[in-house]
Amino acid sequence: MEVELKDLLSDLENLKRSLSDPSHHASIDKIRSRVEHLTSLAKCGPVRRSKVKDMSAEVVDSNPYSRLMALQRMGIVDNYERIRDFSVAIVGIGGVGSVAAEMLTRCGIGRLLLYDYDSLELANMNRLFFRPEQVGMTKTDAAVQTLSDINPDVLLESYTLNITTVQGFETFVASLENKMFRPDKEGSGVDLVLSCVDNYEARMVVNQACNELNQTWMESGVSENAVSGHIQLLIPGETACFACAPPLVVASGVDERTLKREGVCAASLPTTMGVVAGLLVQNTLKYLLKFGHVSPYLGYNALKDYFPTMEMKPNPQCSNAACLECQKEYILVKPARDAAAKAKMEAEALLETESPVHAENEWSISVVEDCELDRTDFRSSDALPEGLVHELPSADEFQKLPAPQQSTNLMDDLENLRRQLDALNAD
Amino acid sequence: MEVELKDLLSDLENLKRSLSDPSHHASIDKIRSRVEHLTSLAKCGPVRRSKVKDMSAEVVDSNPYSRLMALQRMGIVDNYERIRDFSVAIVGIGGVGSVAAEMLTRCGIGRLLLYDYDSLELANMNRLFFRPEQVGMTKTDAAVQTLSDINPDVLLESYTLNITTVQGFETFVASLENKMFRPDKEGSGVDLVLSCVDNYEARMVVNQACNELNQTWMESGVSENAVSGHIQLLIPGETACFACAPPLVVASGVDERTLKREGVCAASLPTTMGVVAGLLVQNTLKYLLKFGHVSPYLGYNALKDYFPTMEMKPNPQCSNAACLECQKEYILVKPARDAAAKAKMEAEALLETESPVHAENEWSISVVEDCELDRTDFRSSDALPEGLVHELPSADEFQKLPAPQQSTNLMDDLENLRRQLDALNAD
Repeated sequence: MEVELKDLLSDLENLKRSLSDPSHHASIDKIRSRVEHLTSLAKCGPVRRSKVKDMSAEVVDSNPYSRLMALQRMGIVDNYERIRDFSVAIVGIGGVGSVAAEMLTRCGIGRLLLYDYDSLELANMNRLFFRPEQVGMTKTDAAVQTLSDINPDVLLESYTLNITTVQGFETFVASLENKMFRPDKEGSGVDLVLSCVDNYEARMVVNQACNELNQTWMESGVSENAVSGHIQLLIPGETACFACAPPLVVASGVDERTLKREGVCAASLPTTMGVVAGLLVQNTLKYLLKFGHVSPYLGYNALKDYFPTMEMKPNPQCSNAACLECQKEYILVKPARDAAAKAKMEAEALLETESPVHAENEWSISVVEDCELDRTDFRSSDALPEGLVHELPSADEFQKLPAPQQSTNLMDDLENLRRQLDALNAD
Repeated sequence: MEVELKDLLSDLENLKRSLSDPSHHASIDKIRSRVEHLTSLAKCGPVRRSKVKDMSAEVVDSNPYSRLMALQRMGIVDNYERIRDFSVAIVGIGGVGSVAAEMLTRCGIGRLLLYDYDSLELANMNRLFFRPEQVGMTKTDAAVQTLSDINPDVLLESYTLNITTVQGFETFVASLENKMFRPDKEGSGVDLVLSCVDNYEARMVVNQACNELNQTWMESGVSENAVSGHIQLLIPGETACFACAPPLVVASGVDERTLKREGVCAASLPTTMGVVAGLLVQNTLKYLLKFGHVSPYLGYNALKDYFPTMEMKPNPQCSNAACLECQKEYILVKPARDAAAKAKMEAEALLETESPVHAENEWSISVVEDCELDRTDFRSSDALPEGLVHELPSADEFQKLPAPQQSTNLMDDLENLRRQLDALNAD
């Protein structure tokens, strides 16, 4: 609109020059002042808040971070401002991913990488975040539009691509490896990958990428009937990877691969997706800012308000070659890691006897026992907590499929994934 | 802007008429066509979706209700469209209330009543829903702006008032009693009241109004350190009211009355508030649409991912006169209600042996045992589930305060509330 108004002004200028009779000049000037007023109106638009250089704990209404920095004074987080150093990748910007992105944006995360290939429909409006006027836009573009208005301090990178294609997978991995944001960072260029996709194939691809990069990630999911969901922490080599054990869905035996059956549409609720996104980002904050207990697995059964939790060890016979590599590496460095952890604990114990960190315990925070936590071996499926059922065949059954297991080449691996999926779909 | 553009066009028309030389008319026409183009651009603005007369289950991208109506096909809800008949009042449009309002709006609730007296600040931007460009607006105005864009089918009523003032309380009660939306409805004009306020006094006022109206409500809260919260169902006469037993806060002994201490600002997180709002609205949907188990109390300890649950019976010595009235009424109609419930159960059992409703159990929904549910007597505070502590003095201690207990007049009751609060604050 600003361009059009500028053109209009120059047209008026030309007209004035071509008029020999100066009696008309007053009329032209009146019209020009109207156009100038319109130009100033057009510039107004929605006001965006300016960037904030440092996070302040000052208690004033104009400080967007005061209620977050207060976590330090409350003794919950040691150094909240560290959040600006972290990069989080979110794969799938749907009902869970978009809300997770908004939560991290409002928390002031340093950098967000967003991946999705889909566009918005009115049928998506029964979940939080996207607005009806964004229908037709790609989910990534609409998310960047909304998130950059909410918090201009967050560095947003958006990738409108399908990670399950060969080209998409390459771009995905390269973007995770990019260390421009924090060149001194160890490992990949991101601190955590959040999987918020709605199908089995995409999860297997995120799993493949994270195993290859030795990248910690969190998986999330919501059932087709909209009333259960889960989050899971995956540390390559240390916990089960997504190929080690079949995914679990609470109180539902629905095969996730059928999510997009012809003519059938899955149910969804903003409540269930909001709760799963909240639990996922809460676990993310605990993991990044080192407070509380990071849950290895947390289920949500909405019908019963039941929240099962468990742990899963990696499968030494996992079909994923990159996972086996990570397992080997984890075992190799285990003695050194254990010794370092022991030394750190002893040093902290010594420090605490000298000067207790939270002597006052002003907020009376007390420790609750881990009565519900079980460490479940991936092989003993009978040992699943009550209310959990396997959604897909077990890893052992997976092995019986005719796909070769020894490939080391990435393209072969992807080809294998696709063949295994086809075999599963043919059941 | 449209007015300005119209004035501009009439000025151009006048100028054209005053120009004797027709050679200038082409220039004027060019300028006029530019202004007409600008007028059409100005009209574009954000496109709002049109109202939808009936909720359809048709699986097309343009149907905003397809994923909700799918809950019927999945066997979760018998009649989803009933949601359009319900009215829900939300008191407090902050970090929990605003998200609860958005969830209910996206679910297509019939009518929402919103109550708040506060205005938006940048310091509120660390929670979901409100946007920085709305800073300075009242929370009710900003909420109506956003919610009416999201779903024009919902009837929104907003009340910018403080329910803890005498005038505010009267307007609050009158608005709950108004039955214009569904004149045939039994009881008050709303189906449920959700309390999403951040202080003790406002909760006691909601409690007073709901006891007087015999109105079922749900209470919610988030702790000052941002890492725990709870929701609670209150049915006058049947469960404990808010005055029967002191409020509970999980793993935190912080006195809620201290929430707004001078110079101190409470911490808050979009995650905790999003989870609490999600659990609250999920419980609301289960209560209104009659599916799953409606939780009487559900806590959320974010540090441990621990979710305690319990039930509380009403206190026969409750200090609230309206509560005692509801208790009497509940006991009076108990035999009739029990007989009706028994007859209904027997009829359903008969129906099920004739033709099972969910014979296929396509989604393999299985029942999970209520291992965690305890029915706790309000008097036996030692019997609280692990991780729960009383946040305020017990009802018995409350009774020792110098406030009279036998008042029946509403204004006396409010005066008593205020005096009791003052006594507590003076501790």
